Amino acid sequence: MMVIPEYIKKLVPYKSGKPIDELAREKGLTRIVKLASNENPLGPSPMALEAIKAGVNDLHRYTDPGCFQLLQKLSTAYKLPADQIFPASGSDAIIQYIVAAFSEAGDELLSSAGTFIGWGVNVAKLGRKMVNVPLMNYNYDLDGILNKITEKTRIIYIANPNNPTGMLIGKTEFDSFLNKVPENVLVVYDEAYHLYASQNANYPDGLSYLNRENVLVLRTFSKSYGLAGLRVGVAFGNAELIQMLTKTRLPFEPNQLAQLAVLAAMDDIGFLQKTLEVHNASMKMLCSKFDELGMLYTHSASNFTMLLFANEEIANQFHSMCLDNGLILRGLASFGIPNGVRINSGTIEETVFALEVISRVHKSITEKQLIQ
Amino acid sequence: MMVIPEYIKKLVPYKSGKPIDELAREKGLTRIVKLASNENPLGPSPMALEAIKAGVNDLHRYTDPGCFQLLQKLSTAYKLPADQIFPASGSDAIIQYIVAAFSEAGDELLSSAGTFIGWGVNVAKLGRKMVNVPLMNYNYDLDGILNKITEKTRIIYIANPNNPTGMLIGKTEFDSFLNKVPENVLVVYDEAYHLYASQNANYPDGLSYLNRENVLVLRTFSKSYGLAGLRVGVAFGNAELIQMLTKTRLPFEPNQLAQLAVLAAMDDIGFLQKTLEVHNASMKMLCSKFDELGMLYTHSASNFTMLLFANEEIANQFHSMCLDNGLILRGLASFGIPNGVRINSGTIEETVFALEVISRVHKSITEKQLIQ
Repeated sequence: MMVIPEYIKKLVPYKSGKPIDELAREKGLTRIVKLASNENPLGPSPMALEAIKAGVNDLHRYTDPGCFQLLQKLSTAYKLPADQIFPASGSDAIIQYIVAAFSEAGDELLSSAGTFIGWGVNVAKLGRKMVNVPLMNYNYDLDGILNKITEKTRIIYIANPNNPTGMLIGKTEFDSFLNKVPENVLVVYDEAYHLYASQNANYPDGLSYLNRENVLVLRTFSKSYGLAGLRVGVAFGNAELIQMLTKTRLPFEPNQLAQLAVLAAMDDIGFLQKTLEVHNASMKMLCSKFDELGMLYTHSASNFTMLLFANEEIANQFHSMCLDNGLILRGLASFGIPNGVRINSGTIEETVFALEVISRVHKSITEKQLIQ
Repeated sequence: MMVIPEYIKKLVPYKSGKPIDELAREKGLTRIVKLASNENPLGPSPMALEAIKAGVNDLHRYTDPGCFQLLQKLSTAYKLPADQIFPASGSDAIIQYIVAAFSEAGDELLSSAGTFIGWGVNVAKLGRKMVNVPLMNYNYDLDGILNKITEKTRIIYIANPNNPTGMLIGKTEFDSFLNKVPENVLVVYDEAYHLYASQNANYPDGLSYLNRENVLVLRTFSKSYGLAGLRVGVAFGNAELIQMLTKTRLPFEPNQLAQLAVLAAMDDIGFLQKTLEVHNASMKMLCSKFDELGMLYTHSASNFTMLLFANEEIANQFHSMCLDNGLILRGLASFGIPNGVRINSGTIEETVFALEVISRVHKSITEKQLIQ
């Protein structure tokens, strides 16, 4: 018999928002709207698609492991030297390399319960010790996290806005937190929802902290540029940290089409503007209907919000009745918030459909509770 | 100052075959032929390209983490249950997950010097102890490897044919080796060049060993299907091993276009036949010219062969003079064979060009040696 480490046996397979295909197979539905995975409802940047179609003939070649052209482009766009930039196959991959490069067996990695599950999965699969502080008012308890720092703590992970609650940490609070973190502890600051959050004047922009030697900032092209299926994210940090990450990365990532897509998408400024317009309109519709129905939800700075129910049973019932009606939302038991259900903004058409379904399901559940 | 593990600091960045773009930038050359990375000279499967173009509009969606359609297709094609199949972002990624899932800090991982560097890189970056047995006649010394097994040995890696030497381990020899490996040691059997090697009747087909609980077989779509730039490889093994790998994989891999490309490419049988025809013709041209010139090379069962020079200096000179003339080959110092240079088969046109350059460079080096 093979010897398999105990922490590997205990890993729980990742469960994402249900793919549209899967629901269609299971229920035979024709009209399905998915607002479960914080995807960009406009689809991918059209300029990215043209670049992909133009580049397919070279797919038999391995990608340049130095990502020369991509780094040049990112360097110009973000006004940073190329040696402070690390592109890889999405934030999940980047987190995996961060855990591998900056911690060893026995080290403690610190974060919050109720945050991005990609963090926890990658900590667990390398057998590191995960220390999680409970959420406070659905946001990070930064003082609680500071109190848990020990001499074994190597990395702290903060997603701002937090996923799945959408709550924002403000600039003053985050500055004060960073000032109290010891210099030998790495802070991973995940700005996956930067496009949406930076509409808020109080949002602490990660790139303003790169003078600190212990900060890595994460961004992604999955959401704002509509390229989730291609897998590409970027980390920014001081050159020594980035050098270590580059040495642990797989040799040929991001894949060739992902690199071409990002090169083109970064020029597509109009697409980002349209993305924000549609998001803002949809989120306004969602929140005003939730208010009207008297549903509880978090005041999110991101492209999603979290609905809160009295208990896990009602949350599951709501989630499952939405599925029956062709609306895919995200149940949050695996995030540690079993009474929460996450919904992201959509096109106006998708939002109208979603709110019709939600109103019906909400009414049905409320009536059933009154009868009981 | 951040605490960075010593084994991370020591990692050497991966150096691939020089990309065509890079050589063009450096030397201002217009005609460049790359036979350095064992790529398919025919380009990607045309059926795969059509599938990619048809699938780009959904790139804003995350890929199905269960790889439902891809697994169905692979299951039918390889006549194996889906739970014995593990697709991921290329063999490099698969090796990374194997090391993470089936070994811990302090364990010994066993292989050969002068084999695929993707193995060594992934062992080193997770801080495992690498034990390498020297090559014997440019092939694995299987008895030497068996002799190095200790109670700390967890995994043995064998690439057949070996990369970069191209040497084949025959069926009888491999069977006898597997019979002597303890049941609690995992054998990773890398068949990246299966298409080419299986023309040899004596080639031990990996899928015939899946009744063993300690064997994982690796295949790739990078070479035979011309999809290196998209990143997709597959591991086969017993269901328990595959389950552990699935739990350690990143949630959304292979990327969406890679999955669509493979779904289509697997129906493109004509492409594989043409690939073999061109390869066989090119390899015949290469070997007969090398014989004519009196150059030493390995008798490879793969889509590449290794040229051998008197010493590292001459190998470097040869490699660098080929570059100056627009021919990219692969120097093998990083593989631990500093007097070797690897060349893969190309189209007939590429092969003619390559042999012209090689003849000229060989003549020039030989004359210089005579004068000295």
